[in-house]
Amino acid sequence: MNMHVAENGYFTEEHSAETVIARMHDCKDARLKQVMEVVIRKLHEAVKEIEPSEAEWLDAIRFLTATGQICNEWRQEWILFSDILGVSMLVDAINHRKPNGASESTVLGPFHVADAPEMPMGANICRDGKGEDMLVTGRILDPDGQPVEGARIDVWQANDEGFYDVQQKGIQPDFNLRGVFVTGDDGRYWFRAVKPKFYPIPDDGPVGQLLRAMGRHPYRPAHLHYIVSAPGYANLVTHIFDPHDPYIRSDAVFGVKESLLADFQRVDDAERARELGFAGSWFWSVTHDFVLARSS
Amino acid sequence: MNMHVAENGYFTEEHSAETVIARMHDCKDARLKQVMEVVIRKLHEAVKEIEPSEAEWLDAIRFLTATGQICNEWRQEWILFSDILGVSMLVDAINHRKPNGASESTVLGPFHVADAPEMPMGANICRDGKGEDMLVTGRILDPDGQPVEGARIDVWQANDEGFYDVQQKGIQPDFNLRGVFVTGDDGRYWFRAVKPKFYPIPDDGPVGQLLRAMGRHPYRPAHLHYIVSAPGYANLVTHIFDPHDPYIRSDAVFGVKESLLADFQRVDDAERARELGFAGSWFWSVTHDFVLARSS
Repeated sequence: MNMHVAENGYFTEEHSAETVIARMHDCKDARLKQVMEVVIRKLHEAVKEIEPSEAEWLDAIRFLTATGQICNEWRQEWILFSDILGVSMLVDAINHRKPNGASESTVLGPFHVADAPEMPMGANICRDGKGEDMLVTGRILDPDGQPVEGARIDVWQANDEGFYDVQQKGIQPDFNLRGVFVTGDDGRYWFRAVKPKFYPIPDDGPVGQLLRAMGRHPYRPAHLHYIVSAPGYANLVTHIFDPHDPYIRSDAVFGVKESLLADFQRVDDAERARELGFAGSWFWSVTHDFVLARSS
Repeated sequence: MNMHVAENGYFTEEHSAETVIARMHDCKDARLKQVMEVVIRKLHEAVKEIEPSEAEWLDAIRFLTATGQICNEWRQEWILFSDILGVSMLVDAINHRKPNGASESTVLGPFHVADAPEMPMGANICRDGKGEDMLVTGRILDPDGQPVEGARIDVWQANDEGFYDVQQKGIQPDFNLRGVFVTGDDGRYWFRAVKPKFYPIPDDGPVGQLLRAMGRHPYRPAHLHYIVSAPGYANLVTHIFDPHDPYIRSDAVFGVKESLLADFQRVDDAERARELGFAGSWFWSVTHDFVLARSS
């Protein structure tokens, strides 16, 4: 940094970022100072590389303004913006680095509810019978591959039209496709559900316009959400994905990680379907084990 | 770029930016693609350097949301944000690079009005008699130091309380401290005014909160605005500044450049003051020449 340039406080194109950063000499908040120094430096680097025209700068101002103005109690366009630029996943990754072998995290998403009911192992979380039957099974393991007893598994998912219950109040039953299960000493979990479907993120605002302009679609591939927690282990917030989904390689929010692809199989076995209480002669079977990291 | 990582579309912390950038393969707008590639790369670099906690990320989301939501027809908080981070000055610098010897530009600011009246050379642009009398003189020159005839000089300034007429409608007369002058064959301009005062940018919103948190004040040092235009020359949008202003080295929007410091002198000469039509026995004298770049 050219201290002379920064200290006289006058603007030059060459030392633009240093001049702005030097102005924080009276900042009492060391973390804010550190954060803003990076923000200012990277922002000036970006502007110098882009060389926006004044009209482009004004377009950016308009986009930022509209992105704030569409936000309300139910709509958070800035989180969508963070999501579609991969920033939400990056912040998640930075905050939840897992040791080798432990299951990876992904974004929580906006549709978790805190008070879903605990259900007996094997229960069907689908409360309206709509969709293709699905059996979900797996184990909760510790880093040594041993079963974790007493692990709490909070699952939720969209229905076969791509909507969560909270998006269709009065259409879907309350708590449809949500449930909490607790493992026994074998660490195993199983429940019944219906095959989820891909769905779009809200794309009728500035972020949707930007997605289209970037040549991108708004879809998230089909997935089930999990929060797995157990005493002595780090909470795991994650999804499992259907690897055959048409959008599996182009999740609009970049939530997919290779380790989160689950084994989705179609099972044509009328007898097994009947045993499971399914009405049809076939069903989907998904199995996925989760490995919890120990609490640090 | 690791094409394998980018092409399968799955997220990794290491290749986060490449994965997001690769998703633009269908973008039809080459300029948008270029801009967003830089935005995504610099944003991910910033996040990786900052390593925000999830609470800090949410604080950022809240700040961005509030910054959009305070905007209305009269208030543009995003432009203020751009201003206080030096981005507005940087965009101005990039778009108005001047050859050596030509006068430098600075930000237009929000208080220009298009239809200020043309006045005879020497007129007093102060219409309410409030403030300390000031004589402003100078020349409009070409790059060879020769006078420019027919140059149009559009000037405006805040009053001695730091307010523009448009901020005090009904208190200040319309077009107070604004005027347009056209040079004769000597390239000289002169007019009478009152000494301007420093003033704060609007600081009752998110940007004001951020300024305070960064240990910064919201003031702009006293200045006169100029737009100088003449056929065959590039338009010059600039200010001149009082180098003795208490905020001259800490302009909240970084508008000051060394070449824009003008010669502000107090003149104790009762006879000259009387000749100029000033009521007191002394006045301020400011002189500054502008050198126009030829149109490219």
